[in-house]
Amino acid sequence: MAVYTQVADHDLARFVAGHGLGELTSCKGIAEGVENTNYLLVTTTGRYILTLYEKRVDVKDLPFYLGLMEHLAGKGIACPLPVRDARGDQVGVLAGRPAAVCTFLDGLSVRQPGVSHCALLGEMLARMHLAGLDYPRIRANALGPSGWQPLYARFSARADQVQPGLRGLIEEELATLLPVWPMGLPQGVIHADLFPDNVFFLGGRLSGVIDFYFACNDTLAYDLAVCLNAWCFDAAGRYDRAKGQAMFDGYQRVRKLNEDEQAAVPLLARGAALRFLLTRSYDWLETPADAIVKPHDPDDYVQRIRCHRELVTAAAYGLES
Amino acid sequence: MAVYTQVADHDLARFVAGHGLGELTSCKGIAEGVENTNYLLVTTTGRYILTLYEKRVDVKDLPFYLGLMEHLAGKGIACPLPVRDARGDQVGVLAGRPAAVCTFLDGLSVRQPGVSHCALLGEMLARMHLAGLDYPRIRANALGPSGWQPLYARFSARADQVQPGLRGLIEEELATLLPVWPMGLPQGVIHADLFPDNVFFLGGRLSGVIDFYFACNDTLAYDLAVCLNAWCFDAAGRYDRAKGQAMFDGYQRVRKLNEDEQAAVPLLARGAALRFLLTRSYDWLETPADAIVKPHDPDDYVQRIRCHRELVTAAAYGLES
Repeated sequence: MAVYTQVADHDLARFVAGHGLGELTSCKGIAEGVENTNYLLVTTTGRYILTLYEKRVDVKDLPFYLGLMEHLAGKGIACPLPVRDARGDQVGVLAGRPAAVCTFLDGLSVRQPGVSHCALLGEMLARMHLAGLDYPRIRANALGPSGWQPLYARFSARADQVQPGLRGLIEEELATLLPVWPMGLPQGVIHADLFPDNVFFLGGRLSGVIDFYFACNDTLAYDLAVCLNAWCFDAAGRYDRAKGQAMFDGYQRVRKLNEDEQAAVPLLARGAALRFLLTRSYDWLETPADAIVKPHDPDDYVQRIRCHRELVTAAAYGLES
Repeated sequence: MAVYTQVADHDLARFVAGHGLGELTSCKGIAEGVENTNYLLVTTTGRYILTLYEKRVDVKDLPFYLGLMEHLAGKGIACPLPVRDARGDQVGVLAGRPAAVCTFLDGLSVRQPGVSHCALLGEMLARMHLAGLDYPRIRANALGPSGWQPLYARFSARADQVQPGLRGLIEEELATLLPVWPMGLPQGVIHADLFPDNVFFLGGRLSGVIDFYFACNDTLAYDLAVCLNAWCFDAAGRYDRAKGQAMFDGYQRVRKLNEDEQAAVPLLARGAALRFLLTRSYDWLETPADAIVKPHDPDDYVQRIRCHRELVTAAAYGLES
């Protein structure tokens, strides 16, 4: 949400020249993502996004993320394509930070996704999952179920400061979900953070998917469960079965969920809600009250967990087998 | 530096349609200016900057600012042109905020201006001054000399918290400058905040001037004095006479300074430094220590005042009569 790192004129010019992008005609710091510094570059050859990676991104994971974007773009997925420099490298250094430049994607993210957006999203997600099956790099999901208990331990004593009763709720969820978490479902590369602000639409089609900086190897159907949480609840916190159904239908037009995946949907959806409740609660406690970048309100995910506790069958989510 | 106000999809679409901008293909929050929320819009007809005015801009001043931009653009000054809506209005309402959309200007701001940039800036400033002479609206300079003492009174008791001795320095400057401040020099519309980040260059020419939200009626030569402070000091805080000379020469190729203006340069430059020292000191004290948007360091202007005390003739600034 903020530009953190400033780039000197000549360093930027050298970086642009080193990537064969033509002459720079404009450079604007943009509020895309909260983790990194992003600039929208306009050059005589087109538009690009320049990203300087700040502390929260681990440099050793950059080849996984950028290689994945190149892999997916090569298979026709509408994601940013990293531009390699004259030496063939995807990652350079700019203003003392690891930096990469990618192609720009047209389109607008939607704040209030409709049923048709959910259908397009489901279809794109399945296409991404298939396209990623032969991606050769591996990255574990640091925010998968094995990471939930350690993350919670960092703020458990303060959890009720977020809201009264949160400690009890989280501990119940951990105790319920971890022992029965489905481990044998089809695995692959997942986006793991496919919220509406990471997806662009244009003229009735899905025109772009961005922000692969949580991508990892994990259960494919869990990625769909993240999207159910991110796309299929209304402003009042109620699950919208029509949106869920559209997303499942879109997904299954491209990749059919097997019986085990279908049966696991309620559990995966509830686990995905817990994952975001944990990170949002932690960020909520760690962010100064007067910071300009406000953390997301964890309460949205308290509400979702309460919903998931009632939705115990895949059919209740709109999945028609 | 940050996007403060979010806009709902349908509100944005309606605003864009109401201004006849074509179909929206992209919308990015950008880090232009610290006062307002700015979005870079790309549509089928071109690029635009959408500005939502936040609390620090007084709505009743918007007709002055936007009318000035239209006036100057109409006279060939490379500044953003506000796009009027179907009813002919420059200011609309979006997300509960006053909002305006302007044409986008290509070009890059320079962080380390050179002599040639200063020459181009001086010439553009004089052209703006001439172009503004018949602008019919009037706005007083709230940060002119009559505002310095009241602004200082708001933090005088805490001034030494910014740095030891600041209180004494400011009070000496106020006592020295206010009684002899030149009041009879040619007046007109001034930009009043023409720092390098508000000026774009492209291909060896000055391609744009932005951010007219401090523009007002005041002494024309004072605008030049602001630019001497903003453009002609090196990173070590020393005045660069060659840059000053280039700026004066550029200015005077378009508009010759009269003898009184020339003689007043040292005083005006010292006063302009005091004006920025006052606002930066105030912002420094009022901004929370952990805010993401860091206030400018007032010390730069303490150093400038010390320089100005030594530069007592116009010739010392590089002005050749």
